[in-house]
Amino acid sequence: MYSDDGFRELGRQECLVLLVRAPVGRIVHTRHALPAVLPVTFCLDADSAVLLRTAADSDLARSVDGVVVAFEADEVDARAHSGWSVVVTGRATVVTDPAEHGRLSRTGPRSWVATPRDVFIRIEPELVTGRELVGGRTAYGVDLSL
Amino acid sequence: MYSDDGFRELGRQECLVLLVRAPVGRIVHTRHALPAVLPVTFCLDADSAVLLRTAADSDLARSVDGVVVAFEADEVDARAHSGWSVVVTGRATVVTDPAEHGRLSRTGPRSWVATPRDVFIRIEPELVTGRELVGGRTAYGVDLSL
Repeated sequence: MYSDDGFRELGRQECLVLLVRAPVGRIVHTRHALPAVLPVTFCLDADSAVLLRTAADSDLARSVDGVVVAFEADEVDARAHSGWSVVVTGRATVVTDPAEHGRLSRTGPRSWVATPRDVFIRIEPELVTGRELVGGRTAYGVDLSL
Repeated sequence: MYSDDGFRELGRQECLVLLVRAPVGRIVHTRHALPAVLPVTFCLDADSAVLLRTAADSDLARSVDGVVVAFEADEVDARAHSGWSVVVTGRATVVTDPAEHGRLSRTGPRSWVATPRDVFIRIEPELVTGRELVGGRTAYGVDLSL
């Protein structure tokens, strides 16, 4: 992310470990030419791709299929001024292969609400970045972040 | 946000009340032609503009000045399958007026880390949207979201 602001950069493996324990993340994309962000439940596939589940006819599925998106998860302790943030950037695709859809129906992310007909969205983990702030202590300063 | 997915849409005033109690949000923008998202502390100005504070020479300040961004905050209870999400979409500007900078230094958002020289970023609340899910109960279904 931003290398000029004094937060500790996390390695790819550290990022993936943190992502696994996050209950929810946020998909960031463009919708009607405006930046859009939506909280989503998710899980990681065996190859670390981010897997989401949404309604087949949703705006989300239409907006992100085939385009590069960002997916973010974080955990922030406002009292302790500490936390972490991880961002996965990569191409999103709606899973159309029936066998793959079947596999993800068994092992993929669950919905919190009932869905008449759903699809899975896969985000390739092309770029995995993260940063951490522990108790507000950094070598030098910037800002607000985290 | 998405009107076809069964979540309860929140009114502007409801959204602003929820934003006030959120300790952290996320600014969504474009960086090097890729979607970018960064957790930030913030507060609301008297006219409901979102106020952030960052280092004057940060990538964030350079990336968002003068462009339309999204700012998101949420609160999710993974056990109860409930939560809310609010998004403010509008033009971001770095505050350059010295009097305004002085006012925000006294009343604006605080940094969690020391900053050698900082600026305030103001996001106009042109579009304020939000949605809520209470205990997974919705009239009809979609997806994963929240």
